[in-house]
Amino acid sequence: MANDAIRQQLEAFRALKTDLHYKDFLITWEHPRQEIEAILALAEALKLLHQQGTSYRAFDSGLAISIFRDNSTRTRFSFAAAASALGFTLSELDEQKSQIAHGETVRETANMISFMAEVIGIRDDMFLGEGHRYMKEVGDALTDGAERGVLHRRPSIVNLQCDVDHPTQALADLAWLKKHFGGLDQLKGKKLAMSWAYSPSYGKPLSVPQGVIGLMTRFGMEVTLAHPEGYGLIPEVLEVARRNAAESGGKFQVATSMEEAFRGADVVYPKSWAPYHVMQRRTEILKTSDTAALKALEKECLANNARFTGWECDRAKMNLTRGGKALYMHCLPADISGVSCQQGEVSAEVFEQYRIPTYHEASYKPFVISALMFLTRLRDPGAKLAAIVERARRLSL
Amino acid sequence: MANDAIRQQLEAFRALKTDLHYKDFLITWEHPRQEIEAILALAEALKLLHQQGTSYRAFDSGLAISIFRDNSTRTRFSFAAAASALGFTLSELDEQKSQIAHGETVRETANMISFMAEVIGIRDDMFLGEGHRYMKEVGDALTDGAERGVLHRRPSIVNLQCDVDHPTQALADLAWLKKHFGGLDQLKGKKLAMSWAYSPSYGKPLSVPQGVIGLMTRFGMEVTLAHPEGYGLIPEVLEVARRNAAESGGKFQVATSMEEAFRGADVVYPKSWAPYHVMQRRTEILKTSDTAALKALEKECLANNARFTGWECDRAKMNLTRGGKALYMHCLPADISGVSCQQGEVSAEVFEQYRIPTYHEASYKPFVISALMFLTRLRDPGAKLAAIVERARRLSL
Amino acid sequence: MANDAIRQQLEAFRALKTDLHYKDFLITWEHPRQEIEAILALAEALKLLHQQGTSYRAFDSGLAISIFRDNSTRTRFSFAAAASALGFTLSELDEQKSQIAHGETVRETANMISFMAEVIGIRDDMFLGEGHRYMKEVGDALTDGAERGVLHRRPSIVNLQCDVDHPTQALADLAWLKKHFGGLDQLKGKKLAMSWAYSPSYGKPLSVPQGVIGLMTRFGMEVTLAHPEGYGLIPEVLEVARRNAAESGGKFQVATSMEEAFRGADVVYPKSWAPYHVMQRRTEILKTSDTAALKALEKECLANNARFTGWECDRAKMNLTRGGKALYMHCLPADISGVSCQQGEVSAEVFEQYRIPTYHEASYKPFVISALMFLTRLRDPGAKLAAIVERARRLSL
Repeated sequence: MANDAIRQQLEAFRALKTDLHYKDFLITWEHPRQEIEAILALAEALKLLHQQGTSYRAFDSGLAISIFRDNSTRTRFSFAAAASALGFTLSELDEQKSQIAHGETVRETANMISFMAEVIGIRDDMFLGEGHRYMKEVGDALTDGAERGVLHRRPSIVNLQCDVDHPTQALADLAWLKKHFGGLDQLKGKKLAMSWAYSPSYGKPLSVPQGVIGLMTRFGMEVTLAHPEGYGLIPEVLEVARRNAAESGGKFQVATSMEEAFRGADVVYPKSWAPYHVMQRRTEILKTSDTAALKALEKECLANNARFTGWECDRAKMNLTRGGKALYMHCLPADISGVSCQQGEVSAEVFEQYRIPTYHEASYKPFVISALMFLTRLRDPGAKLAAIVERARRLSL
Repeated sequence: MANDAIRQQLEAFRALKTDLHYKDFLITWEHPRQEIEAILALAEALKLLHQQGTSYRAFDSGLAISIFRDNSTRTRFSFAAAASALGFTLSELDEQKSQIAHGETVRETANMISFMAEVIGIRDDMFLGEGHRYMKEVGDALTDGAERGVLHRRPSIVNLQCDVDHPTQALADLAWLKKHFGGLDQLKGKKLAMSWAYSPSYGKPLSVPQGVIGLMTRFGMEVTLAHPEGYGLIPEVLEVARRNAAESGGKFQVATSMEEAFRGADVVYPKSWAPYHVMQRRTEILKTSDTAALKALEKECLANNARFTGWECDRAKMNLTRGGKALYMHCLPADISGVSCQQGEVSAEVFEQYRIPTYHEASYKPFVISALMFLTRLRDPGAKLAAIVERARRLSL
Repeated sequence: MANDAIRQQLEAFRALKTDLHYKDFLITWEHPRQEIEAILALAEALKLLHQQGTSYRAFDSGLAISIFRDNSTRTRFSFAAAASALGFTLSELDEQKSQIAHGETVRETANMISFMAEVIGIRDDMFLGEGHRYMKEVGDALTDGAERGVLHRRPSIVNLQCDVDHPTQALADLAWLKKHFGGLDQLKGKKLAMSWAYSPSYGKPLSVPQGVIGLMTRFGMEVTLAHPEGYGLIPEVLEVARRNAAESGGKFQVATSMEEAFRGADVVYPKSWAPYHVMQRRTEILKTSDTAALKALEKECLANNARFTGWECDRAKMNLTRGGKALYMHCLPADISGVSCQQGEVSAEVFEQYRIPTYHEASYKPFVISALMFLTRLRDPGAKLAAIVERARRLSL
């Protein structure tokens, strides 16, 4: 039966066209919907293979390099797990221990670490307007290095969270929605509330809500973004969401209260983020290393945040959703009132009810990253997957 | 001949029953003696395979995660070596670089890192009453995650030193004693002196002496624990040692001087540790981050330690042992008088005489950890070992 | 055609005798010229295999340990890439996280990390007279450990830069010269200018220029070393260069200006380094941790350096070289005027012209390190390479 389910995903995958070989994966909306579907089918197939205890190793050696310019647990281990499962060696670029501080240029470092690299995963989400630009700069350097024969093969960049998108998170979220509702076609018309929530911290990236509204609107979902005044996202991404919704027959609208967004929702995603303009000021201040200004900004922000402690996902608000039973989602870790903080994004009771579902949501990330590595490094991923599935079938006889 | 020795260990191993599949290994005395013997036979077989240059790789991929909450060289490299030899990818959880500081719960982190993990090695020996509890908490979270389908397979925890036991050290010690005396049955009636020794540092964990008295008493050894007044171990572990000795036909007693313990001993293990009640006070202080109190405690402790500089393993005390020729053991690094400190646990002359034997003692650790990984991850470790040995035989023809 | 080129390197390699099995590679001039040639032929073969997408994995498991006592990007990733390509697991010894601070001896640590190690790469270039000595000390401990049966096999040390030589850099440089000029025999009579260059930093190691003059003089090159007064290299290495030149029919001379060295040169290597006597004083001061003295020395040095800002590789000086078209080389990262600093080793225009060639130069390092691992760990590297090439041929049919 496991084999049947795997073969089904294999067939779904082989019916879809992808064009990712030696390319990067930075922003979901830069890729056709068919490619997104292929990633999900492949991720599901790999997850089923792992579940039944079959290796899906596809490579003999090669480096998977990660560059984390911000802390990470989930994504770090997902990337490590994906590299291990596929047969790559993980190598982390610790910029503190490298000579990058010497004034080395990005284009030079990009080439220097890449002579035998296959994949480079990058998290750079601290500065608005910088993370995505940095990844493009690395990518351009890799293209140049490959064209000039410095690199035998151009490594692929996988965005592990930038200032614009958090594609491996959003894809894991979508994979979970697909599983939960029984297929991507089941998402059409489902209402999703992507809502700001109160947190006693500040400076959280905007990439998770942006990634969610930028991806879910492509599958006919009716997405409502809710946030207090002044907590808007990057305007261009709102445009993307609007366009996506128009094209997919879904909806995208902005609300001014969590309650409004939750009303009748099938899915809620309450999550804190910093105001766009605060992130911009923070980016400027961080460049000058003005500690006093940074402290002042933090104080101002926390004071502003404190005006919105009512933006907590609690039982009363959950009761507004469809049948009071919307699916609660979070990228984790959540700020749970009375658990990880005094008052936070979600009440302890609601979180506890949905704790295991959020773990399932997270469980897709290593397989989504595996799929991205698989698709970007293999010329004929369909044939390779078929060979792996056939190997698995023979082993299970 | 090498093949004969390997086959002998294989047969010994296959004659012993183990029940470790997908389980944890935290405390030696929670496992039946037969399982301990199986671990040693397997470790010896793997060591012989490595010695003759044959790979004992058993897995294609998968993560072996280590969490070091205290410094480590020997155990860190033993864990890395074991993971590499078996085919796992090592991934270290650096809590500074993760989001754990965000108030994330242990049960959440345990699941988040484990979607594709096979083994999790943990060192948490700094706080009395905490290390073992932490490992149990992680283990409970993993069990919960596996039962609820979040984890495809429950990873196994290997205790790399907690506040109660240091099982991979004690098992390596026992493997070395088995080798040195020519078999586990040769240990019966042998006298072992586990003695406190002076060190100019303070705050060393109690888990090594506890691990030694908790394990060696199970094999009929006559174990004497010696320490100055006030340097006692956890009372429950003394109980375990007493019960073990009674059951195995060995002995367990407490002495008040190194000389008393050494008299007629076949094996001596002089090693410093902090007084139990000091560790308790230290644990309390560390929670409050009261640096002044910590300094005061350190000063008080070092002054107290200084009253016992006579507890040094020197030639005169070694002369008290059986024929003056007891085997000296240490988990390393030792505080060697005139080498690594002015005055320490052991004289330079005694240490130099036994330096190579202590290296042999240490050399068992990577193979003990390999054995624990092998036993906890394979459903039929006997069949797998037989296949590896057969592969080795064919390669050597 | 790729297969032809690979087979040609294979044949060249098999015609050369090497004696590196289980040995160290610390200083190029301690190895016969034939061995150097074999390393280059092997590195080229491995590079070609990688270029055509064929794995040259040669091992099933085993640790490749790196010890970096100074920052590194290029060498760190080259070592990681080589380990991955050959099938070794990378394990880094972070001395901060180990118990080495406890006063553990080098000979003990060397054995403790090596029970299952195959290769140990060490960078220790901060202290004059110390790096090489440290590697010898580690090597002696490994030999002792292997002879006494503590280690099943003696791991090999690969010098990743010491105070005397930077052999993986110099070998990569030579491999690039061989490629650029079409063969080692084409180097005879070619003029190489190894020149000091101005940098706004201080304390750069002497090992790169020493490595270059110690290696290139063995291949009949006419090497001119140029530096301001007081910036001499270790006298013994100058002796080596003189002797090498005499034996190979090349030349070695010292000049007092960059212009003089550049005149008629086929290759220029302008690179900053600290004066020998300053490095000696720095080494003494670093031992005492006298921060004020260190600051004073830095200030004095930078002031002295500033007298020589004219030592910049610019267009005018390049015009002095043979036809104005000498090959510019650098180990990277270079201090580029107006890019990574206000005024530095090389003008932006000259660097940009030769940027891609310096990347090609760097691209040899992972394959040189792969070759060193291959040669030091395999009893019959020729047979193994032949088997890998045959495997590649069959796959490409």
